Amino acid sequence: MNKQIPDKVINRLTLYHCILQEFIKSDCDYISSKQIANRLKIDDSQVRKDINLLSNSGKSRVGYLVKELKVSIEKTLGFSKSKRAFIIGAGNLGMALAKYDNFTNYGLNIINLFDNDPDKIGKEINNKKILDIKDLPILIWQHYVDIAILTVPAQHAQETTDYLVKIGIKYIWNFTPTVLNVPDDVLVWNENLMGNFLQFTYGIK
Amino acid sequence: MNKQIPDKVINRLTLYHCILQEFIKSDCDYISSKQIANRLKIDDSQVRKDINLLSNSGKSRVGYLVKELKVSIEKTLGFSKSKRAFIIGAGNLGMALAKYDNFTNYGLNIINLFDNDPDKIGKEINNKKILDIKDLPILIWQHYVDIAILTVPAQHAQETTDYLVKIGIKYIWNFTPTVLNVPDDVLVWNENLMGNFLQFTYGIK
Repeated sequence: MNKQIPDKVINRLTLYHCILQEFIKSDCDYISSKQIANRLKIDDSQVRKDINLLSNSGKSRVGYLVKELKVSIEKTLGFSKSKRAFIIGAGNLGMALAKYDNFTNYGLNIINLFDNDPDKIGKEINNKKILDIKDLPILIWQHYVDIAILTVPAQHAQETTDYLVKIGIKYIWNFTPTVLNVPDDVLVWNENLMGNFLQFTYGIK
Repeated sequence: MNKQIPDKVINRLTLYHCILQEFIKSDCDYISSKQIANRLKIDDSQVRKDINLLSNSGKSRVGYLVKELKVSIEKTLGFSKSKRAFIIGAGNLGMALAKYDNFTNYGLNIINLFDNDPDKIGKEINNKKILDIKDLPILIWQHYVDIAILTVPAQHAQETTDYLVKIGIKYIWNFTPTVLNVPDDVLVWNENLMGNFLQFTYGIK
């Protein structure tokens, strides 16, 4: 649990987890590193190396026990540690994320959305109410939330961030195409979509 | 241009590019590696190392020329190579991506959205028409598109992928929380949101 797991491995482990869920649905008991590797078109030695980083990585001659490996990934990556978050900005992207039921499986619990548009405030998306951004300071304390998922339009990203920082948000998952200015005690994860796309297409002739 | 640039560097370079755009807006002529590093809370030696990978990385004593560095990143990462794509699935996420005007700056040209919902077909999002998924095969050839941005609900991800592959799509930017099964000549980039979130929150106590 305290072993430091590199970012890329964390990312791959969640993909393995997706595959394991499918195998469980299809009533398969065992999975080999080769089977995982083939689905992701990566090397099976990479898969074995990643799995070796898990606390529990028992392997029999027929492969890994699907259920055991799944639990092992969940424990190592802390899926059961619930992380409570608010979505800031109830536009299309905010709504799309609010609808992602998959998140709760990974411990991400989205409590509410916030917006300043009177037409949106009061509405519900996937059982999550859209609230007035003005009420955010009280609700942060009420719900012990320190993670904000930022989905406002780019031109409002920095001012919204300043507000979030002022009222005590410590972690910002930034979906806006901007680089935010934050103090040292606030952590930003840039969901840099364009960067990802360019990684994907960089090699295309 | 032919130097192989690692994924993580490509990702960081697009963030530097964001910062450079801001500097241009503020009429700043020079930028130092320290200034870039501080905004991203990374080491400035890392920034210098990344910039050294660019074809043109002229640096004066007062720092990099902002405009020159911006063009250098654009050239190296091929922003001017237009990449044409279709969005498959005009739900909230598909619509959010269609509204991302920022994409065109990076060479990503989203031509149309596709859906099978008669209520959506014919509507327009950000000047991009939502078309009937049945018409996709003709339009792929008409517009020379081989990139699909997959934003359908998870339960339809694989069947939609099978269809995309059959009609000639070669690159799938997968926003669904599933691991797709594709033949060897099709490339998938998993926009593994949960993996990213866990990378972000893994260290949180």
